[in-house]
Parts: sequence; structure tokens; C-alpha cells
Amino acid sequence: MATIRSEARLQETLDRIARLLEKHRVLDTLAARQEGPKRDLLEHLQHRQNLAELHKFVRATHAADLAFVLEALPPGDRRTVWDQASVEQAGLAFVEVSNVVREWLVESTSHERLIALLTTLDPEDLGYVADSIPSDILREVSRALASADRQAYEESIQYGEDRVGHMSREMVIVGETTTIQQTIEELRALAELPPQTDRVFVIDARHVLRGSIPLQTLLLKDPSLPVVGVCASDTVTFAPGDAIADAVKAFERYDLVSAPVVDDRGKLVGRITVDSVMDVVRADAEWRALKQAGLSRDEDLFARPWDSARNRWPWLAINLVTAFIASRVIGRFEATITSLSALATLMPIVASIGGNTGNQTMAIVIRALAVDQLRPSGAARVLNKELVISLLNGSVWGVVVGIAALGLYSNLALGAVMMSAVVLNLVVAAVAGVAIPLALHATGRDPAYGSSVLLTFVTDAMGFFLFLGLASAILF
Amino acid sequence: MATIRSEARLQETLDRIARLLEKHRVLDTLAARQEGPKRDLLEHLQHRQNLAELHKFVRATHAADLAFVLEALPPGDRRTVWDQASVEQAGLAFVEVSNVVREWLVESTSHERLIALLTTLDPEDLGYVADSIPSDILREVSRALASADRQAYEESIQYGEDRVGHMSREMVIVGETTTIQQTIEELRALAELPPQTDRVFVIDARHVLRGSIPLQTLLLKDPSLPVVGVCASDTVTFAPGDAIADAVKAFERYDLVSAPVVDDRGKLVGRITVDSVMDVVRADAEWRALKQAGLSRDEDLFARPWDSARNRWPWLAINLVTAFIASRVIGRFEATITSLSALATLMPIVASIGGNTGNQTMAIVIRALAVDQLRPSGAARVLNKELVISLLNGSVWGVVVGIAALGLYSNLALGAVMMSAVVLNLVVAAVAGVAIPLALHATGRDPAYGSSVLLTFVTDAMGFFLFLGLASAILF
Repeated sequence: MATIRSEARLQETLDRIARLLEKHRVLDTLAARQEGPKRDLLEHLQHRQNLAELHKFVRATHAADLAFVLEALPPGDRRTVWDQASVEQAGLAFVEVSNVVREWLVESTSHERLIALLTTLDPEDLGYVADSIPSDILREVSRALASADRQAYEESIQYGEDRVGHMSREMVIVGETTTIQQTIEELRALAELPPQTDRVFVIDARHVLRGSIPLQTLLLKDPSLPVVGVCASDTVTFAPGDAIADAVKAFERYDLVSAPVVDDRGKLVGRITVDSVMDVVRADAEWRALKQAGLSRDEDLFARPWDSARNRWPWLAINLVTAFIASRVIGRFEATITSLSALATLMPIVASIGGNTGNQTMAIVIRALAVDQLRPSGAARVLNKELVISLLNGSVWGVVVGIAALGLYSNLALGAVMMSAVVLNLVVAAVAGVAIPLALHATGRDPAYGSSVLLTFVTDAMGFFLFLGLASAILF
Repeated sequence: MATIRSEARLQETLDRIARLLEKHRVLDTLAARQEGPKRDLLEHLQHRQNLAELHKFVRATHAADLAFVLEALPPGDRRTVWDQASVEQAGLAFVEVSNVVREWLVESTSHERLIALLTTLDPEDLGYVADSIPSDILREVSRALASADRQAYEESIQYGEDRVGHMSREMVIVGETTTIQQTIEELRALAELPPQTDRVFVIDARHVLRGSIPLQTLLLKDPSLPVVGVCASDTVTFAPGDAIADAVKAFERYDLVSAPVVDDRGKLVGRITVDSVMDVVRADAEWRALKQAGLSRDEDLFARPWDSARNRWPWLAINLVTAFIASRVIGRFEATITSLSALATLMPIVASIGGNTGNQTMAIVIRALAVDQLRPSGAARVLNKELVISLLNGSVWGVVVGIAALGLYSNLALGAVMMSAVVLNLVVAAVAGVAIPLALHATGRDPAYGSSVLLTFVTDAMGFFLFLGLASAILF
């Protein structure tokens, strides 16, 4: 048995492919420098030998590793590697890559090859990638499917990407009147079970779910027992219309490997598995970070600059509008600033410390909302707590900032203004840090999306207003 | 069979407990208003009846649900619920809660009860929570363990929390000379398999791993076959010292349910399972968001304000220092600002748009680093791409901002300064957005931690410098 450490293997695979591609490019360049027949000879001999080596190596690569390599390579190299993969490998890798790379692959593959590789997929996997595929190709692929597969595929695409029904998979079903021995014989007739099968599902004559039996129970219990006697009774079930986010939480909480999907009459219609759930968790975590930075959709590391630039516009535009509004707050105090230019120097500090503490409060509230742990009664309590913290932090850091301002400008009143503005802006930051994600959540939005721009807008504008307003009231 | 939708069940549990606690508090208040014997009577009758109801409900709650409820309740209520749980429930819930709530539970539980609940745990779970428990209690618990359990516990704590060895779990092992039939008989003798057992591991006489057999193979293959003949040969293996982060990636990529842990001589020493891996993925995702907001450790939603305030200081202090440095850049141009106060009004816009675009670039680079997809050759390419994007975005948005400034102040030169400063600061943001996470990564740090404060420092300071510098050179 080959016992390979997986991360090491993956980096070796990528290194090896990178070296082969490098050789490929060097030979390309050499060949281009030669003229006529000599060039042909060089290409013919070395070049093809090298491609053959790459071809052999790619074909021996696990499809999941191939997906990783495709993600990590820039477009030219990506295409060279992609062209070497077998149809089956290409199909599996096509399912594993991210949405943006999948779209790139669709654009860069001939219709013929695309149809060939899609036809090798499970109906569930086909449903999973359907959104990325042009509809004419999808129709051709669907026509090529066996009728049972076509039905499974059509069921999976009738639910949105964020619904349990969309990631429902093949399963093993036994009738409630069988015994363990009969069940084992039925399994043997299948020769192979679907991936991630940790249990078989028991149904009655009307296809209603009666429970499930873990494989280990089939192994451990007396084979002559009827299956209904050994059914696990506490199975968590999902409806096809349930949010995948809820399924993710249940899988985490109850340590599930697979769980049944039933319709509203209790009939078994599918199964979801831990591997799909893990993929969702990872994709969510990555996407959340990109969203918080204001990217409106996912981005290929090697996307065309123009596509990337436009991907970043929506939030840049919002940021620009809020920055202009905050700037107009300063504009109201231009006369004050002209009399004491130290104010222009110090004002960004008040805004910055407010933005920083507000983001801390907001991160905690967003997390509590994401795991459903913030209840209406808890919200008031959390706001109270954050207000106390802001007063505590305000007293400590307000004094530090005030003394620093006093030291820089030898102006006691200016130090006092600075201190008061910091304390007040921290209170503003606490209120905004609790209120903004709660408000986004209450209107059905993702509390993380947009929260940071809104918060910085509030803490900037209020920071400038409080500091310059206090200054013009007290210093002049 | 009870087919319950899990998220609904969980919210019902929390609602039900909240209502019982509410009744409890109302009765407390009523009782406090009464005097003498009447008060005693009230307490005695209604109060105890109510607690008995809560007690019964808590005892019927799944330990994972109990953990969720404990996280979501403020300290007073949390303690009331915690006191109702059975020792076994409390033990399992203690493992499931977050670190901060676990620390709170340690503080709020008598030594006696703490020892009792810890003694009910698997040795692996005990190792998992060991860091939160005072060493004197740990010694007493360890003394109470059976010798095999104590050995498993001591092996698990000898690795750091981020190492595979720390989350190694119990497994089923068979010798390479047995047949499938003998293996099934050995399993039957165990009566129950450890959780998340999807395969048994095959070892030779020196305890070296030969491979693994999925349970479904045991069910499907001819029972008279020797186990070595049906061993899966492509098993991914881990070393106890491997980073858990690497194991997480392998579980995601290869859709594993469990995988063996072997020492450097190939001997089988443990097993890691998908449920632990999922917990790590979730905890990482949550912790990353908190870290990016500048929280130095995790925080209980209901922590004491003073503890929370201090948790937020380290980054507040760093933020304050960088804000003061950026402010000193403005200080150099105070004379310029006094002559044209519009500069003070417009300068935060230049800084803000730089911070926003820099954060977008950084989010993409951090994600690529996290999934190991950014190679040295790729870094130069990504920097090039981001520079092109910044020039594209700079041309578009620089013109917009320049025209807005021109419109506000009817000063063509000021509009030109504003436009040039935005273009240049976007270039600065692109370089900083690529360089900062790469530099943090190269020095072995988490590229997300601290990156945002550093980036904002660069884009603020350079934004002020570029705008005010250009203004004093061109306008005066």
C-alpha cells in the first residue's frame, strides 16, 4: 500500500507539473528560434517526448489534485494541463474546481469534449454544475442520459443552489419487511455502494421513511433479525426545500455522515452527505472573506484585469459616495480648520479609532448571528455590554490620545476636545457595531455583507463631526 | 421513528428553555416581594415545580443541543440550565462548547462535579479539553482512568492543539492474516464500534499499517477472502506531528470519513475522523473573522465588560500608533492646509478609496495563500495584474473624483491633484495589498492577522502624503 502524506503529495504534484510546463515553454522558445527543417525536427523529437511525459503524469493524478493544479495555474499552463486529462478525470475535476475556474473551463473547451466529459458525471454532480453550462450543451447531455439518471438530474436542478434538494445524492433503500441477511444479499448484488454510504434507509410500501440502519449494525447484529427491529430512530431528516446552511449546522452538531431528505408526506426522496457539506463550509468561509472586502462575485486568481476591475466596482462606488458624504461633514468646518490646522491633523485619529473598535464589536455580533445565538433579549444585553466597554476603553485610550495631543500642540483645551471626541466616537462605534448587523439581519440580508463600509461611514462622519464640532464650540 | 427537522428542533429547545427560565425569574421576583412564611411557601410550591419542569426538559435534551443553549444564554440563566444537566450530558456538552464558554463552566462548577463529569469522557475528548482544566483536577481525573484510557489520554496531550496527534481517536484494528469472516466475528465481539467508523485498519505483526477496509467491503465481499486481498491501497495517512490544517484540506479534497495516523516507522498510532475535522473548519472560519477585526482571543458573547475591553486592547494600541504616524504626515503640511482648507476636506477620500481597493486585493491574495495556490512565480503575475487593475480603476474613479472636486471648489488644478492622488494611491494599495500578506506569510505568520491594520496604515499615510504633497507642489 502506498502511504502518502497528502499535502506533501499535492505540492509534489504541483511542482512536478510546473517543471514539466517550464521545460515545455523553454522548448517552445528554442524551437521558435530555429528556422525551417531544423525547427520541425526539434519540435518533433524533444517537444513531443516532453508532452508525452506531462500527459502520462497528468493521467496518473487524482482528479481532486488535478482540480487543485488547475486552480493554481495561470491560463496558458492551465489549458495545456487540461488538454492532457482523460475525459473521466476532466469530468471529476470539472465538478471540484471553483465556479470561476469552471466558467473559464467551459469557455476554453470544445463543445464536443465538454459534452463527452459531462456525460461521464453522476446525475447529482451534473445538477451541481448545471448553472455554469450553456443550455444547448446541457440539453444534449441530458438527452444522452439513461432515464433514471435523467430523472435524478432533473429533480436536483429544480431546487436553488442553496437548498438541500440541490445536493441530494444516490442512496441505498431497503423495504421494511426484509431481514438483515436479505439486506446484505441485496447490497452484494449491487457490487458497489454509492460514495459516503454509512447507512441504508428503510422505507415502507408507500416509500415513507421508517428509519435507517448504519452499516456497522448490519455487520454486528444477528442476520436473521428483521430490519425494522434495528432501525435507528433518532435520525435527523431534511426537506428538499430546507436551506443548506441549516443542514451544515446539523451535520456539525450531530456528527453526521449522511442524512435522509424526505418530502412533506414523509416519503424518502434523497440523501445528503458530509463531503458535500464540507465543501459548502469551505466555500462559505472563503466567500465571506471576499464579500467583506467588497467583491461582488468570486474571482479567478488569474482573471483578465478588466473583468477583475469591474468585479470591484459596486463597492468602490458605494465607498466613494460615503467618503464624499463624510468629507462634506469636514467641509462644514473649513473655517474652523483654517484657524487651527492642528484639527485637520488630529481628526483622522478620532475616525480611525472609532472604525477599529466598531469593527471589533461588529465581528462579535455577526458571529453570534451566524450561529443563531443572538436572541432579541440578548441583543439589548449585548448593546449594554458594548456601551460599558466603549466607556471603559474610551476612558483609557481617550486619556492617552488627549495627552498625546496636548504634548504635540501644548494646548490643554485641544487635548480635552480630543479626549471627549474619542470617548463619544467609541460610544457611536458601539451602537453602530451592534445596530448595523442586526438591521441587515432583520431585513433578511447577510449581516456581513456591506456592514464594514456602513460602519466606517458612521464612525468617520461622526468622528469628524464630534471632533470638529466640539473644537469649534470649545476652542473658539 | 421521530423525524425532526434539526434547526427547528434547536430553536424550539432554546425557546422552551427561555420560557421556563423566564417563569423561574418571575417567580424569584414574586417570592422576593413576599415576607416570612408566605415567601417560603411560594418558593416551596411553585418554584420547585417549575424547576422540576426545567430539569426534566434539560435532561431530555441532546448534549450537542445543550451546548448550543449554554452558548446562547447569559451567565445567570446559563448556570441554572447547567446545574440541571446530568453528569454524562454535562460531560459531552463540556466538550462541544467553545473554549471561552468552557472556561466559564470550569469557573462556575464545583471541583467535585467537574471531576465527575470529566471522568465520563473518552480519553480523546479529555485530551481535547485538557488545556482548559486546572492541573490539580486533571491529575485527579487521570488517576481515575483505566490504564488503557490513561495511555490514550497521555498520548493525545503530548501534541499541540494544532497537531493531528491531538485529535487522534479510538479505532478498530485487525491483523493481516485474518479473513473477512474472522474480522466480522471480531467486530461482533465488540458489540459497538467507535463513532465515525467507516473502515477497519489492517496491520502486520509489527503493528505497521498495511491498509484499510471500508465496512461496505466487509459486507459485500466473499467472507472467506483474506483481508489483505481487499485492503484499500490508496489510503491517505497522517503523522501525529502533521498540522491539522493540512489534514482538513485532505479531508475536503478526498472526501474522507476517517484516516489513519502512523508514526515515522509506519506503525499505526491513531485515527482522525471527519467530525473533528468539521469542528476545526467551523472554529477556524469564526476565529478568522474575529482575528481580522483585531481581537486577540475568542470572546464569550456575555463576558464581563472589563475582560472584553482588555481583549480588544492590543490591536487598539497598534491602531492608535499607526493613526498617529499617519496624522504626523498631515502635520508636515499644516501650512498648506491653512492656505487651502479644501485640502483637509478632500484628503480622507483619497485615503479611504485606497484602503478599500487595497483590502480587496488583499482578500484575494490571502485566500490564494490559504489554499496554497499562490506560488512564487504566480506572485509576480498577480502583482502585475493588480497593478493593471489599479491603473484601470484609477483612470475611471480618479476622473470621477477629480470632476467632483472640481465641481465642489471650481478649481481645475485642485481637481487634477485629486485625480492624480487617487490614481497613485490605488497603485500604492495594489502593491501593499499583494506585499503585506506575502511578507506576513514568508515570516511564518498568518497572513490575515494584522494585515488590515498594516494596509490601512500604508494607504492612509501615503494617501495623505500624495494628496498634500502634490497639492503643495502644484497649487502653490
